[in-house]
Amino acid sequence: MKSDTATSVAPRSPVATLMAMAAKLQAVGTETVDLSLAVGRVLAQDLLADRDNPACDVSAMDGYALRVADLARGSVAVAGEARTGQTPEVLAADQAMKIVTGAPVPNGAEAVIRREDVQEYPDHIGVRAGASLAAGENIRTQGQNIRAGERVVEAGRVLTPALAGALASFGLWRPRVYRALRLGIIVTGDELLSPDSKPNVWQLRDSNGPALEAMVAGCPWLDWQQTWHVADDLEETRTALADALQECDVVLMTGGVSMGDRDYAQVAVGQVKATVEFHGLPIRPGKPMLGAIGTKGQAILGLPGNPVSVLVTARRLGAIVLRTLAGFEVVDPPVPMVVVDLPDVSNPELWLYRPVKLSGDGAAQILPTKGSGDLVSAARGDGFVEIPPGTEGEASRTYYGWQL
Amino acid sequence: MKSDTATSVAPRSPVATLMAMAAKLQAVGTETVDLSLAVGRVLAQDLLADRDNPACDVSAMDGYALRVADLARGSVAVAGEARTGQTPEVLAADQAMKIVTGAPVPNGAEAVIRREDVQEYPDHIGVRAGASLAAGENIRTQGQNIRAGERVVEAGRVLTPALAGALASFGLWRPRVYRALRLGIIVTGDELLSPDSKPNVWQLRDSNGPALEAMVAGCPWLDWQQTWHVADDLEETRTALADALQECDVVLMTGGVSMGDRDYAQVAVGQVKATVEFHGLPIRPGKPMLGAIGTKGQAILGLPGNPVSVLVTARRLGAIVLRTLAGFEVVDPPVPMVVVDLPDVSNPELWLYRPVKLSGDGAAQILPTKGSGDLVSAARGDGFVEIPPGTEGEASRTYYGWQL
Repeated sequence: MKSDTATSVAPRSPVATLMAMAAKLQAVGTETVDLSLAVGRVLAQDLLADRDNPACDVSAMDGYALRVADLARGSVAVAGEARTGQTPEVLAADQAMKIVTGAPVPNGAEAVIRREDVQEYPDHIGVRAGASLAAGENIRTQGQNIRAGERVVEAGRVLTPALAGALASFGLWRPRVYRALRLGIIVTGDELLSPDSKPNVWQLRDSNGPALEAMVAGCPWLDWQQTWHVADDLEETRTALADALQECDVVLMTGGVSMGDRDYAQVAVGQVKATVEFHGLPIRPGKPMLGAIGTKGQAILGLPGNPVSVLVTARRLGAIVLRTLAGFEVVDPPVPMVVVDLPDVSNPELWLYRPVKLSGDGAAQILPTKGSGDLVSAARGDGFVEIPPGTEGEASRTYYGWQL
Repeated sequence: MKSDTATSVAPRSPVATLMAMAAKLQAVGTETVDLSLAVGRVLAQDLLADRDNPACDVSAMDGYALRVADLARGSVAVAGEARTGQTPEVLAADQAMKIVTGAPVPNGAEAVIRREDVQEYPDHIGVRAGASLAAGENIRTQGQNIRAGERVVEAGRVLTPALAGALASFGLWRPRVYRALRLGIIVTGDELLSPDSKPNVWQLRDSNGPALEAMVAGCPWLDWQQTWHVADDLEETRTALADALQECDVVLMTGGVSMGDRDYAQVAVGQVKATVEFHGLPIRPGKPMLGAIGTKGQAILGLPGNPVSVLVTARRLGAIVLRTLAGFEVVDPPVPMVVVDLPDVSNPELWLYRPVKLSGDGAAQILPTKGSGDLVSAARGDGFVEIPPGTEGEASRTYYGWQL
């Protein structure tokens, strides 16, 4: 019987439970790959600046490099041009040199006056009466962004486009990255057929395998190995799990984690000598979720069989374990938020995950749903929000896109 | 000379300018691919439900299927089990059947009582005095999520993990998707060397090529063809642009878009008979950005040469054009927000893009930066925020991760 007594102790957050499991896991090994193959992977070394950036004083504007005192004369002779990619020039006394953004500032020049602030003539520039320029103005000084030897970013960062640019800029064209996590998927269920089948009404085409495979495919630090499809059968489940643990760093199982007579996930986990870290979380959907660690430190995540449960538990909670194995420095990174209006009353003891559609910048609508079996609602949404216990109404909520 | 007169007309937003260009473009063709290859691509057909979902009445809980009136007797005989993946059973009068979540409800049963709400014995269940159950309780009725023939999602959606699950569930295992955009990159600059080079102080390793290639690599609906590296030379620029337009749907150029003597992007665009749609936007960084359309409807985006300008203009504005060509229904989708505190005064006429690091859920810190050349600051960040003209201080801002 369910207890009707309200608990006075706040439930442990699901994130805390996953973090506790993650603390027992070690990141996989590393490898050195070409930058073009490292995109979306996790950096396994610090990126240090191999040179000052900028490497010398360069112009921040299109204009004319000159000595500040020469401005007062109202007109300055122009002696050539300082160009990008060429050895810095020497600026003669009383003269200016034309210069473009990024070009090295000529030796002797003190500032750059912007092109739009002068009158340009074939051999000189005219300066507005009273124009002034501080020494150093419109110059990016050598090392102002970073000095040689300083750290640009630490290990454990995912290689974004911006970071890829920085790696190229500082010559780290063969970075050390964590190898991609070998990931296996075990889908359990007597009723599940393949997507190209014609099911009877009491059968389903499996959606959990394709959904998880899609999540992995969009994530370069995950390397999908295989999906095993097994019946609700202990022997089949155990055999698939043992196989998966042989070749994978992490195994995602769907279904079979409840306490029913035909829920074999936990028993199979025990039979392969894995240690259950948690079983059951104060969440909806996804409550029966199970986490275990194999004998070689592999992670096993037992996700419920309902399709929405699979999506939210993998994306929100399983991801913490995946990021830990994959070498991320921050395994539960902060996320942006959206304002949603929770139309029904939240649960005082459960974290809720509700599919949403972004409806405007910083705003989303909770999609009508019939529960964790309602993949239609999830498919129509962009992702989901997390609603902590006992919080209701219109509020900013953390937002998670479906893609990891 | 720059005018000091304040304009009384609000500048046209950069998004409006890009949307106007996008309105002249047509989406690329379509192709049919296996679901496993369609992840992250853009759906080119509606997804219709090929069957009711659920396809028959199924249990929403682990428990016992029975007739409601039988509850009053306090004890009900249990006659077998309704299992997933098996033909629905027939429930005899005065009896209950054990049932698991997702299993078809036996013919004759009116509701499911949850396992935790009964006492279980080998051949019957005991029911708490006064227990009541409405007809239909804990049953997911046939078609409650969607009816056969109804639309799950419309064309023009990107294939998320949730949508991939829905495609599998409704048997669309070979969806029609837009073909991936063929994308070329032209990097201009006399000073640019490859990432594995040892530059002199007046030279740079190119970071714009690797940054854009990384953005494309993380985006399955984009298909990178080639990166051309050209000097600040009209002939080289025009030749590369003509080549790129032969094989690409969209060409991203970096550098050469200012009004300097060696900025050849606009001239080259004219020489290949492309039409300039805009040149210059009220943004910082990225102000000289250029948009043009080639004779066969190809998009040309001329991005400034500074690395941060390249990242923000491609991610925030170029993306609108890319999504249009790629078949997205919504080409400027809403995004979630973060609260940031703008430490300096915003510009009354410019949209600002500032690299940020997420510092907590729904919160970010604007990173100290030396301007559009400061790739170090961008690399340390998770993405950037957009700050509309004349808005200052602590506020929620739209957030864009670096990855498209």
